[in-house]
Amino acid sequence: MFDKFEDECGVFGIFGHPESANLTYLGLYALQHRGQESCGIAASDGQVLRMHKGMGLVADVFKKDSIFDSLPGESSIGHVRYSTAGGNGIKNAQPIMVDYVRGSIAVAHNGNLVNAQELRNELENRGSIFSTTADTEVIIHLLAHSKSEALPDRVTEALTAIRGAYSLVFLTETRLVGVRDPNGFRPLVLGKLDGAYVLASETCALDLIEAEFIREIEPGEMVVINKEGLKSYHPFGKVTPSPCIFEFVYFARPDSNIFGRNVYSVRKEFGRQLAREHAVEADVVIPIPDSGVPAALGYAEQSGIPFELGLIRNHYVGRTFIEPQQSIRHFGVKIKLNTVREVIEGKRVVVIDDSLVRGTTARKIIKMIRNAGAKEIHLRISSPPTSYPCYYGIDTPTRKELISSSHSIEEINRYVTSDTLGYLSHEGVRLAAGAPDGSPGHFCDACFSGNYPVKFPRLKADSQLGLF
Amino acid sequence: MFDKFEDECGVFGIFGHPESANLTYLGLYALQHRGQESCGIAASDGQVLRMHKGMGLVADVFKKDSIFDSLPGESSIGHVRYSTAGGNGIKNAQPIMVDYVRGSIAVAHNGNLVNAQELRNELENRGSIFSTTADTEVIIHLLAHSKSEALPDRVTEALTAIRGAYSLVFLTETRLVGVRDPNGFRPLVLGKLDGAYVLASETCALDLIEAEFIREIEPGEMVVINKEGLKSYHPFGKVTPSPCIFEFVYFARPDSNIFGRNVYSVRKEFGRQLAREHAVEADVVIPIPDSGVPAALGYAEQSGIPFELGLIRNHYVGRTFIEPQQSIRHFGVKIKLNTVREVIEGKRVVVIDDSLVRGTTARKIIKMIRNAGAKEIHLRISSPPTSYPCYYGIDTPTRKELISSSHSIEEINRYVTSDTLGYLSHEGVRLAAGAPDGSPGHFCDACFSGNYPVKFPRLKADSQLGLF
Amino acid sequence: MFDKFEDECGVFGIFGHPESANLTYLGLYALQHRGQESCGIAASDGQVLRMHKGMGLVADVFKKDSIFDSLPGESSIGHVRYSTAGGNGIKNAQPIMVDYVRGSIAVAHNGNLVNAQELRNELENRGSIFSTTADTEVIIHLLAHSKSEALPDRVTEALTAIRGAYSLVFLTETRLVGVRDPNGFRPLVLGKLDGAYVLASETCALDLIEAEFIREIEPGEMVVINKEGLKSYHPFGKVTPSPCIFEFVYFARPDSNIFGRNVYSVRKEFGRQLAREHAVEADVVIPIPDSGVPAALGYAEQSGIPFELGLIRNHYVGRTFIEPQQSIRHFGVKIKLNTVREVIEGKRVVVIDDSLVRGTTARKIIKMIRNAGAKEIHLRISSPPTSYPCYYGIDTPTRKELISSSHSIEEINRYVTSDTLGYLSHEGVRLAAGAPDGSPGHFCDACFSGNYPVKFPRLKADSQLGLF
Amino acid sequence: MFDKFEDECGVFGIFGHPESANLTYLGLYALQHRGQESCGIAASDGQVLRMHKGMGLVADVFKKDSIFDSLPGESSIGHVRYSTAGGNGIKNAQPIMVDYVRGSIAVAHNGNLVNAQELRNELENRGSIFSTTADTEVIIHLLAHSKSEALPDRVTEALTAIRGAYSLVFLTETRLVGVRDPNGFRPLVLGKLDGAYVLASETCALDLIEAEFIREIEPGEMVVINKEGLKSYHPFGKVTPSPCIFEFVYFARPDSNIFGRNVYSVRKEFGRQLAREHAVEADVVIPIPDSGVPAALGYAEQSGIPFELGLIRNHYVGRTFIEPQQSIRHFGVKIKLNTVREVIEGKRVVVIDDSLVRGTTARKIIKMIRNAGAKEIHLRISSPPTSYPCYYGIDTPTRKELISSSHSIEEINRYVTSDTLGYLSHEGVRLAAGAPDGSPGHFCDACFSGNYPVKFPRLKADSQLGLF
Repeated sequence: MFDKFEDECGVFGIFGHPESANLTYLGLYALQHRGQESCGIAASDGQVLRMHKGMGLVADVFKKDSIFDSLPGESSIGHVRYSTAGGNGIKNAQPIMVDYVRGSIAVAHNGNLVNAQELRNELENRGSIFSTTADTEVIIHLLAHSKSEALPDRVTEALTAIRGAYSLVFLTETRLVGVRDPNGFRPLVLGKLDGAYVLASETCALDLIEAEFIREIEPGEMVVINKEGLKSYHPFGKVTPSPCIFEFVYFARPDSNIFGRNVYSVRKEFGRQLAREHAVEADVVIPIPDSGVPAALGYAEQSGIPFELGLIRNHYVGRTFIEPQQSIRHFGVKIKLNTVREVIEGKRVVVIDDSLVRGTTARKIIKMIRNAGAKEIHLRISSPPTSYPCYYGIDTPTRKELISSSHSIEEINRYVTSDTLGYLSHEGVRLAAGAPDGSPGHFCDACFSGNYPVKFPRLKADSQLGLF
Repeated sequence: MFDKFEDECGVFGIFGHPESANLTYLGLYALQHRGQESCGIAASDGQVLRMHKGMGLVADVFKKDSIFDSLPGESSIGHVRYSTAGGNGIKNAQPIMVDYVRGSIAVAHNGNLVNAQELRNELENRGSIFSTTADTEVIIHLLAHSKSEALPDRVTEALTAIRGAYSLVFLTETRLVGVRDPNGFRPLVLGKLDGAYVLASETCALDLIEAEFIREIEPGEMVVINKEGLKSYHPFGKVTPSPCIFEFVYFARPDSNIFGRNVYSVRKEFGRQLAREHAVEADVVIPIPDSGVPAALGYAEQSGIPFELGLIRNHYVGRTFIEPQQSIRHFGVKIKLNTVREVIEGKRVVVIDDSLVRGTTARKIIKMIRNAGAKEIHLRISSPPTSYPCYYGIDTPTRKELISSSHSIEEINRYVTSDTLGYLSHEGVRLAAGAPDGSPGHFCDACFSGNYPVKFPRLKADSQLGLF
Repeated sequence: MFDKFEDECGVFGIFGHPESANLTYLGLYALQHRGQESCGIAASDGQVLRMHKGMGLVADVFKKDSIFDSLPGESSIGHVRYSTAGGNGIKNAQPIMVDYVRGSIAVAHNGNLVNAQELRNELENRGSIFSTTADTEVIIHLLAHSKSEALPDRVTEALTAIRGAYSLVFLTETRLVGVRDPNGFRPLVLGKLDGAYVLASETCALDLIEAEFIREIEPGEMVVINKEGLKSYHPFGKVTPSPCIFEFVYFARPDSNIFGRNVYSVRKEFGRQLAREHAVEADVVIPIPDSGVPAALGYAEQSGIPFELGLIRNHYVGRTFIEPQQSIRHFGVKIKLNTVREVIEGKRVVVIDDSLVRGTTARKIIKMIRNAGAKEIHLRISSPPTSYPCYYGIDTPTRKELISSSHSIEEINRYVTSDTLGYLSHEGVRLAAGAPDGSPGHFCDACFSGNYPVKFPRLKADSQLGLF
Repeated sequence: MFDKFEDECGVFGIFGHPESANLTYLGLYALQHRGQESCGIAASDGQVLRMHKGMGLVADVFKKDSIFDSLPGESSIGHVRYSTAGGNGIKNAQPIMVDYVRGSIAVAHNGNLVNAQELRNELENRGSIFSTTADTEVIIHLLAHSKSEALPDRVTEALTAIRGAYSLVFLTETRLVGVRDPNGFRPLVLGKLDGAYVLASETCALDLIEAEFIREIEPGEMVVINKEGLKSYHPFGKVTPSPCIFEFVYFARPDSNIFGRNVYSVRKEFGRQLAREHAVEADVVIPIPDSGVPAALGYAEQSGIPFELGLIRNHYVGRTFIEPQQSIRHFGVKIKLNTVREVIEGKRVVVIDDSLVRGTTARKIIKMIRNAGAKEIHLRISSPPTSYPCYYGIDTPTRKELISSSHSIEEINRYVTSDTLGYLSHEGVRLAAGAPDGSPGHFCDACFSGNYPVKFPRLKADSQLGLF
C-alpha cells in the first residue's frame, strides 16, 4: 500500500472546552494518518475567530506553544489534509476562514464534491471570486449568498446545492456545526469530554483526548452545537447510505470504530474470508506492514498457517514519505522494508497486502522476498481489484495507472512475479464488512465495482476518467 | 524618524520579459524601504498565474532559486508591504490573486481607501465573502461583479466606486494594468527594458534593473499593457492632483525621482529653506542618519555652518527592526546610533531630522548628544509639525500619539530637551517641494495641515480619529 | 520499552566506493534506531578528510544534496548517537575528526569505556586539551601520542590502554579501520559491495545498501582496509567474549543478524521460553508494540493462545520522542498507543513486553487495557528483571530508578496493577539467546545479573552506581 | 571597498556583571562590522564554562532568549569573525573552549600568528591533536602544556612562543584575561560598567553598553581580572609598537577611538591631506558610501568643492553580502548603490573611496557615474596603493589580485576608466594618522610599504606570497 492511494483528509471540532485548540491539536495528531500534507486549526473565543495553518505534520506546524496562545477560546475546529480535489499548496490548506455578512466562519471538509466545478462556474458568473481551488470554498460562497437568516438554514441551503461526499465541521463565533452527506461516504463521530461536544472523523481521536464516544453523526444529519446544547437536523431527502468500504480496507486506523464496526476486526475478517476464497498450501503467512497485518492475522487464523513478521519496517521513514530525499529515492521500498531471511528462507510464503494499485511496489517486495530465499510466493490481497477511480474524496491515480483497470489477474500475477495471486471477491469484501448476505448497496464500493452512488457531471468525467 | 511613521507599500510590474519574476524580485529589492513586513510576486506564463509570497524581507522570502522556477512567464507583478489598513499577517500579504469569471487576476496595491468598509459592508450584504482584511480585496470583488466584458471597463467600474489613495498594478494571464488614483497620492512610474514595459512605485527600481524611465503614470490614468502594446485611459473625472508631500519628506528613496522631481534635491532644498527660516549661531550641523542627511547638507550649505557626521549608524540593525530581539529592545536608539564625541564636544550643534512623531526618540538622541559634550543643541525639523493622521496609505499613529497634535512647539522643545526647536513652515515645505509660490493645493499635506483632499466617511473617522 | 533504556550508538564505514558518503547516509538511516540525537559523516577523497554532523535524525541533518557534494571521496565513516557517556549536545556528536602528526583522522565509536576518566586525567596532566566530554576523544589522544609509526600499531597502542566496550571505525586519508573490543560487547559486521568493504553495527545496514554479508568482526579483532585490501589483526590478549545480551532483548533491529543469530528469531524464542516458564490460562496474547511483537508471537505459538494486536501505535510519534511538544507531553503513552477494545473486552489478556525499567509506562498501559474491558491482565516480560546499570554503552537509569533493583516481583506486580507478572529467567534468556545449556559466561548479562565482565574503577562506580 | 579586504575579527570580555552574556551580546553587536561569518559567547558562573556559537550575524545566532538562559554567570567573552587564518566553517568559530589540567578555558582571538604552522607541527610531533585549523588552538595547546602553575605564567609562556598579531581575551571559571601583542597591531580597550571590567576591540562596544572608557590595553600588556580586581603585567620584551594603520583607513568604526585617536577625525584628515596632495578643479565631491564618507567630507572641506551624496546605498543589502543570492549576484554593485543623477549630471566629479583592491568594483561604479552624466571623474583614494598582503589578521587577497602590486597608477587609472586617479601618499597617510612628521615606524603600514614589522617564516611566505 505504499505507492497506492494517498490519504484524504481528517476533521475535528470541539465546543465548550477551555483548552479547545490544544485538544484539537491532539485530535488532529490522532488523525494524522488521514492527511500529512497540511493542517490547521481555527478557534473562537466567542467574539473572534483566529486561525493557524501550515504545510507539514501537525507536530511540526504546531511546534511552538505561542501558537496556542494565539488561538484562545472554547471552540475550535481542525483539519489534516492530503490532496484530493484542489491541488497542493498552502492556499488550499484548511480550515478555510472568511468574513461574510453574518460575521466570520471557518470550515473543514473531508470528502469531494462532484458538482463543485459547475457551481463554481455559476458563482463566478454571478461575480464571485475564488482564492483557492478547493471544493470547500464553493460551500462557503453558497452559504454567504443564502438569503436565510439562521445559520442552520444557510448551511442547509448551501448543502442542498452540492452533491458528493462530505463530512464537514463549521465554526462561527458562537456555534459548531457538523454535517455528513446523505450517502454518509465519510465517517464522522460525536463524543463528549467534560461536558464539551466533540466531532471527529474517527473514534481514535476521541480515545486520545479521553472523550466518551456518543454516536456517529448519521448520513444526512446536521448537528448544530451552541451554549444551549446540541440540536440535530435531517434537512436532506433520504437516500440509501453508502459508506466508503475503502475506509475499512485501508484508510481508517485499526483502533477506530466507524460505520458501526471496529476496523481491526473487519480487516481480520477480510483476511479470514480471503483464506476461505484463496486457500493455498504454504509454510508461513507474512503481512506487508503495517496495513497488511490484521488481514494476515485473519488469514493465518483461518488457514492454520503460522503468522510471522517476515518484513520489518523502518520506523524513521515517516517523514521522508512527505518530503523525499533526493539521494535515497531510488532505493524505493528498501528504505522502508527489510526481510527477515530466517523467516522466509526455504519456505512457501503467503504475502498479504490490503490492496494493490500500480503493482510496482508489490513487484519490488516480491523480489526482496524471493531474494531472501522463499520457495514459493502467494500474494493475497484483502480487497477486490481497484479498477475505478474514486470521486468521493480518495486521491486515486487515474484509471490508466490502476493496474487492475487494464490487466487481468493473471497478467498482474505475472507482472508482480508472484507464484499465485488472489484477490478478495466483491461479495466477500462486502460480507466481511457487514453487508447482510454480502449483497451490494450497503457500501460504496465504486473503486472495485464502478457503481458510483452519486453521479458526476460529464465535465469532470471527461477530464479525469481518461480510459472510460 | 525611527519611532515615527511605518513604511507603507511598494508595487512593481513588468510585461513581456523572459525573466519577469527575477526582475520583479530585483525591483522589489530596490523598493524594500517601502515595506519590510511581507512581500510577494505573481507571474503569468500567458496561460496560468502563479504566486509566491511570505512574511519577511524580499531577500529572505525569495531565498531559494526553486521559487523562481515555480514562477515562469513573461509578466509579473510584485509587492512589498508594511501594514496600513488591514493589519499584519500573511493573510494580508500581497499580491492578492483570485479566480473569477474571466480567469485569474492578481493585484498589488499601494495606498489606502477611505470607503473600503462601506463597500465591504455592501458586498457582504450581497453575499460576498472576504478572506483578508485588506482594502485591496474590495477592489477585486468590485471588478469581479462588474457586468462589463472588457478588462479596462471592469477595472474602471471597480475604481469608480472606490475613493482614496491607490497606485495599483493588476496582472491577468495576458495583461498588465497600472492605475493611479485621480489625486495621484502615491507615485507610479513607467519604464522600459528590452522592449518590456515596467511599472514601479519609484524610479530607483527602474535604475536597478537598468530600465529606461519613460514617464510617470499620471493622476487618474490607467495603462493597459498587452502583446499589442500600451494603451492609456483617463476614465475618471478630472480633479486637482494632490501628490503626497511626505514621500519627499521621508518615504521615497533619495535617488528616486517622483512627482517630477529628484527626492534628494528636494530634501536638500528643505534643509536650505529650514536654514532660512530658523537660522542659529552654531559650530556644526549634524544629521540624524540616514533620513536627515540631505536636509542637513542643505542646511549646512545655506547657513555656512560645517556639516559633520556626529552620529554613526550601526548598519547591522536593519533586520532587528523587523523582528526585535527581546534582550536588546530596551537599548532603543543606542543600538542604532552612536555619537562621535570629537565632532560634538564643546560645540553648538544643529541637529537635523526630517520629522518628529512622538518625540521620544528625539529626546533620547538629544540626551546622547548632550552626553557627548554638546554646548548647545538646536533641533531643526525639515518639515512642519505632523499633527494629523494620514488616511491615504501611511501608517501614522493616532492623533493622541502625535506630539504636535496636542503640544505647542515650545512644549515639544522642552520635552525633547533641545535648546531651540524649529520646524519648516507650511509654506516653506510646499515651496521647497515645488509648489509655485508655496501655495497650498499642489500637494496633499494633510498630515501637516489637516486639509484632507478626499473626504472619508464618518464611520472611519469615528473609530480612528479619536481626538477630533 | 518506552521510558526505559535510551538507545546507544551505531557506526558505519565503507572503503573504496565512489558514492561512499551517500551509502554511509543510507547505512546510518538503517541504523537510526541505535541513536536519534545526533549523526555525522566523515569522508576522505584520498587526500583530505571532510565532515558534516548535526543534531537530529539522519534524514534531517543530511537533508540537502549540497551536503553530499561537500563530502567527496571513496571512503567514509558515519555515526548515529544517543547519549551514553559524554552528555548531550553537538560538541559530542561524532565522528570526531582531528589533525595529528600523521595527518587527519576521524573516529566513530559505539560503546563506553570504563577507564576514560582516569586516562583523561593522565592526559590532561601531560598537557592535553579536550574539546568534548566523549570517551572517544581519549582514544584519539592516545593514538596521537603513540610513538609508533604505523597506523595499526598506533591504534593498538591506544586501545591497549583503554578498557570497556567499543566497536570503533577509524578513517584516515587512505585507510579504514574497524575494531571490536576483546569482549565483543557491541556488534560489528563486515560486508562487501561492488568490491568495497563495508563495516556496520548491524546487518540491516548491509541489507539496505545491498551489500553482501561477509562475517562479523571478531571480539578483539582489528581490520585495516586500504587500497591493497583488508588485513586482520588480533592485537589484544584473548579473553572470553561476552556480547551484550540486551542487543537481542531490545536494541538491535529484528531483521539484523548479530552474534551469529537472527534477532527476530531469538526474540520469538524468548517468547516461547517465557510461555514455558510462565504459562497462564488466557484468551489472547497482545504485544506492546513494536518491541514486544516477536516475543508475543513466540508466546502465542508456544501457548496456543491467539495472538492479536490489542494496542495500536501512532506512527507519527517518532519525532516527538526526540523533541517533545510541551502541550502533549502529559498525555504520555496515550499519544503513542491506543487500545482495540474489540480485541480486549471481556478477555483474559497476556501482555508481552521485552523489558521493564521504571514500571511507570507499564502501569499506564495496563490501566488503558483495563479500561478497554480486560477481565484479567497477565504481564509477561521477555527478559529477566533489569536490576543493574550498564557500563558498556547502554544509557540505563541509575539503580535507584530501576524498579527491579529495589522491589520484589510481587511488589512490581502490585505497582503496575497486573493480575500476574512473570519475567523470563536468567537461565531462560541465556538458553534462548543460544548459550549452551543456558550456562552463564557466554554473554554479558550484567544488567540482569550484576556480573560485570570488565571491572570499572572505584571513581566511576562511586559517582554513578549510587545504590551499590 | 566592496570587493576588497574582508573584515577580520572582534573580541569582547566582561567580568563581574550579573548580565554578562547579555552585555557580551550587545558588545558583539557593536563590533559586528569586524566579522559577520560566525560569532560566539562563552560564559562562566564561577564553576562551569558554557558556550554558544554559530554561523551568521550576532542577531541571528543569538535570536532566542533561551540561549541566554543557557549562559548564566557573571563573566563572559565573545567573538565575531570573518575568516583570516583557518578557513571558514563552524569548526573555526570562536571562542574556542576546552578542558585542560586546570579546568576549563575559553579564548577569543583577533589577529594572525606568523609562526602558527611551525608551532603546530612541533605540537603534533609531541602528540597533540587539533580540532580546528585556527591559530588560536595553538595558543591553547601551548598554555595547556605549560609547566607553570599560575594562569598568568601559563599565558605568558604560551604567548612568548608565538609571534604575530593578537588581541586576545581568555576566560576561565574565575578569571578574565586580556592581552595585546607587543607590536599592538590590533586594538583592545578597557572599560568599566557598574564596577565590572570590560574588554573590547573598539570603544564603540563600550559606548553601546554605556561602559566608561578607562584606557587602551598597551602593546605587550596582559591584564588579569578576578574578584580581587585587575592586575597588569608586561611579560614580553619591549619593542616599538606598530598599530595597524588600516584600522584607521577602513576597519574600525568611525565612532570608535583607537590608538589614541578618533577614527572619524583621522579619516577626515586623510581626506584633507588627499585634497592637498591631489587637488583638482571640480564641481562636486561624492563619497562611495559608507566607508568613503568621512574622507570625502575632509576633501570637500579642504578643497572648497561642495560635498554631495551622489551615490545612495540600499540599506537592505547587508545580509546578502554574507550569503549572496544566486539570482542577483551578477548585478554586483548596482544592488548596493545607485546614482543620484541630479547631483552628477553635467558635473566634474571627485569620487572618494578609502582604498582600492582589485579595481573591479571601482570600475563598475565609475561606469555608473559616467552613465549618470558626469563630465569628468576624478577618483581619489584616501590611502596609498595596497600592494602587499597582510599577515597580521586582515584577509587580503594574494598579491596577484592586488591591482596595485602589478600595475602603475596610470595603468589603474586606465583600467577603472577614471579621468584622473590620485592616492594619498605614504607620508601623507602617516601624517594624517598622527605619526610625528609623517615619519615611518609609528604604524604598521606593511600593506602599503611592504615593511613587515614581524618577520614570518619562509614556509608561510612560500605558500601565500606568490608573486614575491
